Amino acid sequence: MTETAVAPAMTLKPTTNKVSIVMFSGTADKFIPLGVLTQAAAAMGMECDVFVTGFALLGFTKVPHDLPFPAEFAGMAPALMQGMAASHVAPWDTMLRQAKAMGAKVHACSMMSEVMGLKLEDFGDLVDDVVGAATFVASAAGGETFFI
Amino acid sequence: MTETAVAPAMTLKPTTNKVSIVMFSGTADKFIPLGVLTQAAAAMGMECDVFVTGFALLGFTKVPHDLPFPAEFAGMAPALMQGMAASHVAPWDTMLRQAKAMGAKVHACSMMSEVMGLKLEDFGDLVDDVVGAATFVASAAGGETFFI
Amino acid sequence: MTETAVAPAMTLKPTTNKVSIVMFSGTADKFIPLGVLTQAAAAMGMECDVFVTGFALLGFTKVPHDLPFPAEFAGMAPALMQGMAASHVAPWDTMLRQAKAMGAKVHACSMMSEVMGLKLEDFGDLVDDVVGAATFVASAAGGETFFI
Repeated sequence: MTETAVAPAMTLKPTTNKVSIVMFSGTADKFIPLGVLTQAAAAMGMECDVFVTGFALLGFTKVPHDLPFPAEFAGMAPALMQGMAASHVAPWDTMLRQAKAMGAKVHACSMMSEVMGLKLEDFGDLVDDVVGAATFVASAAGGETFFI
Repeated sequence: MTETAVAPAMTLKPTTNKVSIVMFSGTADKFIPLGVLTQAAAAMGMECDVFVTGFALLGFTKVPHDLPFPAEFAGMAPALMQGMAASHVAPWDTMLRQAKAMGAKVHACSMMSEVMGLKLEDFGDLVDDVVGAATFVASAAGGETFFI
Repeated sequence: MTETAVAPAMTLKPTTNKVSIVMFSGTADKFIPLGVLTQAAAAMGMECDVFVTGFALLGFTKVPHDLPFPAEFAGMAPALMQGMAASHVAPWDTMLRQAKAMGAKVHACSMMSEVMGLKLEDFGDLVDDVVGAATFVASAAGGETFFI
């Protein structure tokens, strides 16, 4: 366990103008709401932090991984992808890139990165840094929080 | 991408008396906590907003879809449904209807509705309107937020 | 439906120094972020409440259940567990026990416990009590909230 406390609770700076997302699930469908929520929040001038951990780290590596659709809905995946193309919905990483251009930050979980043998240089340009969970939890106080 | 910013962050009206839920997962089990959390929040006089997106939209159409149980727990589904009947637990849509009678609102995601070819008239009476993610994110500020 | 309102919304005591987690998913991978988030929050002196419901209750019984890995990533489970051992990451229940030693509380959902035929004495020592969802929702106001 490499986590250490980074800040006493009293130093938290509460804000209601922030969206903080733990991105854990690694199935392809879950990356769509990640893109949508970060893009929407950043476009409104809200702070936006994403903490990537678990299997979702595989969506952020330089060497691309083929992210699976959830087993229960795999049969609907082709129609869904076709519908997204027809509606001109940007891919999740384009939306997240737009969010980052407006100030959103993406952090890879230090513990799970180590467990999966990933270093900062193994991640693509979407990842800003590698941090511990405590840093994320402290920073998320007062804002909207989601676990995807 | 049809999302547009709807409000600058400075117009957010923070409240701690609100529960805002993104309902994304489309497996049958996840609809139970949706019903329970909305009913509990509304019964306590809290504001309650549900933003339905992704495969979960299939649970709100007029033409009913057979929602799958998660693959890992499909074998336990019959016992679970039997236990819910024996404990006289109301179905999720009954609980959500009770929450709506007390003021809860259900919004379908405009982007994913378009992707899946669904219009407001395709949804059952549980859905109040079709809105963008930015509207939901702005409205959720200051309250409890969950991604199911 | 055995839920009843426990408190009017006006009695909520908002705090930004709190993390409240609904633990619903029963796959083995999701217990890792439960341990990490609770341990991180408690170590920073934040209040921490976990509301266990759904299939996740199976992770807290005295009689142990073999929790499945998510179907999509089952093939990666052995490498992940090996990586966690190599990185000396504590098991999720050890992390949660550390969080509890620092003040975190774990509540089993009364409704789903009844549905699954589980009483307080059926749970291991990690579970503090059996409560209704309304109690959890009221208590979570003002803090960070996650649905795992």
